Amino acid sequence: MSIEQFMKSTISPWMKESGPDNDIVLSSRVRLARNLSNYPFPIIASEKQEEEILQVIENKIENSMYEGIGTISLHKLANMERIEKNVLVEKHLISPNLANESKHGAVLLSKNEAVSIMLNEEDHIRIQCLFSGLRLSEALTLASGIDDWLEEKLDYAFDDKKGYLTSCPTNVGTGLRASVMMHLPALVLTNQMNRLIPAVSQLGLVVRGMYGEGSEALGNIFQISNQITLGKTEEDIVEDLRSVVMQLIQQERTAREKLLKTSKVGLEDRVYRSFGLLSHSRLISYKEAAKCLSDVRLGIDLNLISNMSANILNELMIVSQPNLLQAYAGEGLEPEKRDILRAKIIRERMKLEKE
Amino acid sequence: MSIEQFMKSTISPWMKESGPDNDIVLSSRVRLARNLSNYPFPIIASEKQEEEILQVIENKIENSMYEGIGTISLHKLANMERIEKNVLVEKHLISPNLANESKHGAVLLSKNEAVSIMLNEEDHIRIQCLFSGLRLSEALTLASGIDDWLEEKLDYAFDDKKGYLTSCPTNVGTGLRASVMMHLPALVLTNQMNRLIPAVSQLGLVVRGMYGEGSEALGNIFQISNQITLGKTEEDIVEDLRSVVMQLIQQERTAREKLLKTSKVGLEDRVYRSFGLLSHSRLISYKEAAKCLSDVRLGIDLNLISNMSANILNELMIVSQPNLLQAYAGEGLEPEKRDILRAKIIRERMKLEKE
Repeated sequence: MSIEQFMKSTISPWMKESGPDNDIVLSSRVRLARNLSNYPFPIIASEKQEEEILQVIENKIENSMYEGIGTISLHKLANMERIEKNVLVEKHLISPNLANESKHGAVLLSKNEAVSIMLNEEDHIRIQCLFSGLRLSEALTLASGIDDWLEEKLDYAFDDKKGYLTSCPTNVGTGLRASVMMHLPALVLTNQMNRLIPAVSQLGLVVRGMYGEGSEALGNIFQISNQITLGKTEEDIVEDLRSVVMQLIQQERTAREKLLKTSKVGLEDRVYRSFGLLSHSRLISYKEAAKCLSDVRLGIDLNLISNMSANILNELMIVSQPNLLQAYAGEGLEPEKRDILRAKIIRERMKLEKE
Repeated sequence: MSIEQFMKSTISPWMKESGPDNDIVLSSRVRLARNLSNYPFPIIASEKQEEEILQVIENKIENSMYEGIGTISLHKLANMERIEKNVLVEKHLISPNLANESKHGAVLLSKNEAVSIMLNEEDHIRIQCLFSGLRLSEALTLASGIDDWLEEKLDYAFDDKKGYLTSCPTNVGTGLRASVMMHLPALVLTNQMNRLIPAVSQLGLVVRGMYGEGSEALGNIFQISNQITLGKTEEDIVEDLRSVVMQLIQQERTAREKLLKTSKVGLEDRVYRSFGLLSHSRLISYKEAAKCLSDVRLGIDLNLISNMSANILNELMIVSQPNLLQAYAGEGLEPEKRDILRAKIIRERMKLEKE
C-alpha cells in the first residue's frame, strides 16, 4: 500500500472536515455511559452474561439505522488481531481497556468513524461522538439522539433520583464526559500552561496530555474534559466546558499574537527548523515528531507557512504512532525500524503537501 | 547585489577548481617569508622605513609580470575600509596581523587569488600560494618561482649558514610554512582526533582548527602544517607533511567506510537533518552552520546526497563569516541580524543547488 493510500485509509473521515475554531480546537467529543437494567455491570458480569448482553444489543439494532449517521457496523474484539485492536485505540475509537481486557467486547462504528459505540467496556454501552473543531453542542445533540434511539429498544438502568447508573460512581447521573482536544503551543512556549492547568482544574475540569504517558502533552495537544457528571444537566456540563475552552482559545490567541510581535524571527526559525527536520530526517522518535508537527501546525496557523494543510498535525500524530506504523508495515517492528518508517511516512506526507 | 552574484564575487576563483583527494583535502598552501637585506624587520622599522620598503618593492615589480599567474594588483591597507580588510582576512588572503597592525602594509594579489604576497607584515615579504586539493608540490613550485622572480629584483636578507633571515626565529632557514586544510568529520565522529593530534605533533607538525577560536575546529576542518623550517630542504619539508597527510586521508577514509557499515541510517539521518536545517532555518550561528555544512559535505562525499556540489562546504564556511556578511549587507550588523542574513544566504545557496 502506498503511504498516500495508507494515510487515506487510516485517518477517520470526520477528521478531515473543518470546524469552528479549528486553528486551536482540533476536535470535540461527547461520551455517554449507559447500562442495561437487567444485567450486572461488565466488571462483575459472567462471561455468559457478557455474551448475552452483546447478543441482546446486536439483535435490537440489527437492520435498524439511526438517521444521519449512515450504516453502523459491528466489530467484535474477539475476532480481531492484536494489531487491529491497537490501531482502533490509536485512532481513539476504542479504549485501551476494551482492547486489552474485554472478552466479549465489541464496537459499533459509523462509516465516517464520528460515532463509535463500545459494548461491554466498563459499562455495557458507551456512545461516543466526535466532531472536528469546537462543536460540543452538536456532539451532544448527536449522542443524545443515538441514546434516545437505543433507549427505545433497550431497558436502561436508570434511577429517578440518581439518573443513569454506571459501573464507576464518577459517571453516575448524566454518564456524560465531554472533552475537547486543543493545540496550545503558544501557551506552552510562554510557560503559561503550568499556571493554567491548576486553574482549570479548580473549575471542575480535567486537563491532560492527549498523547504521551501520564500528564506529558506530546505535540502540545491537551484534552480538557468535565469531571462532574451529577447534579447538572447535560447542556450545562457542555456549556461550562465550552466557556472555559473559549477562554483558553482567547489566551492562546493572545499568546500567539504576542510571540509574533516580540519574536517573529525566532518563531519563524523554530517553525522552519521543524519543517526541515520533518522533511528530511531519516530516523525520528514519536516525541520529536510530535514536537516538530506542533511547530509546523503553529506556523501554518500563523501564516508563516503557506500552501500547507493544517490537518498535517492531527493526521501525522495519529499515523506515526507505534501500532499504526506496524499495521502499515504488516509486521511487528523494533523501535529503530519504527523510527525509520515514521521518518519515511512523514517525509512522504510532507512531499505530497508541497506538490 | 543578489546572493548568487555575491557568492561568485566572494569565493576566490582558485577554490572552485577541483584537485587531488579533494574529498578530504580542501586546499594546500605554501608560504615563504622573505626580507630585504638593507632594512630592519617591520617589527622595528620606522614608519618612514616601512614606506620606503613598500616603495622599493612597488617600483621593482611595476610593469613586471610573473608568467602563469596573470596580472598582480597591489592593495595598500591604508587605503582600505576596515570591513574590506576583514574580508581579506576571512578569505585567508591576508593575516589578521596585517589587517590590524600594519601602517604601511600591502598585499599583491593575483587575479584568481591563488597568489597573495603580503608586504610589511611580520616580514617584509610573505609569498603565499593556494591550491585546491592536495597539491603541495605544485604550491611549492609556484611559490619558489615567484620567490626567484622577486629575488632577481630585490636584495634578500640571506645568510649562507642560516638561510633566509626572518623576523621570528621560527621561520629562519627556508622561511617555509606548508599547510593543508583537511575535512576530517569521520575521525571526529569516531573520537579519533584527540588521539591523532598529539601523534601528529610528535612528527614536528601542528594541527589546529582552521575556523573558530583557539583549537576548536569548526566544520571539522583542520589545518596541518610544518613546525620546522630549518635544517631540511623545502622539498623534504613538503614531502614530510605530504606523507602524514596521506596517512590522515587513509584513516579518514577508513573511518568513513566503518561509519557507513556500522551506522548507515544514523549517518544518513545526521546528514539529512543538517541538510534540512541549512535549507530552512531562519537564524543560524556560524558554529551551527559549520557543523551542518560539515555533515552535508560528508553526505555528498559518501553519495548519501546526490546532485550537490561538494564546494558548498568551503564556500559557505567562507561567506557566512561575520565580516563577509557585513560586507554583503553593506553595513555593520548586530549578531542576531548576522544570524538572520547567514541563514538567508545559506538557504538561497542550497536552493540554487537543487535547481
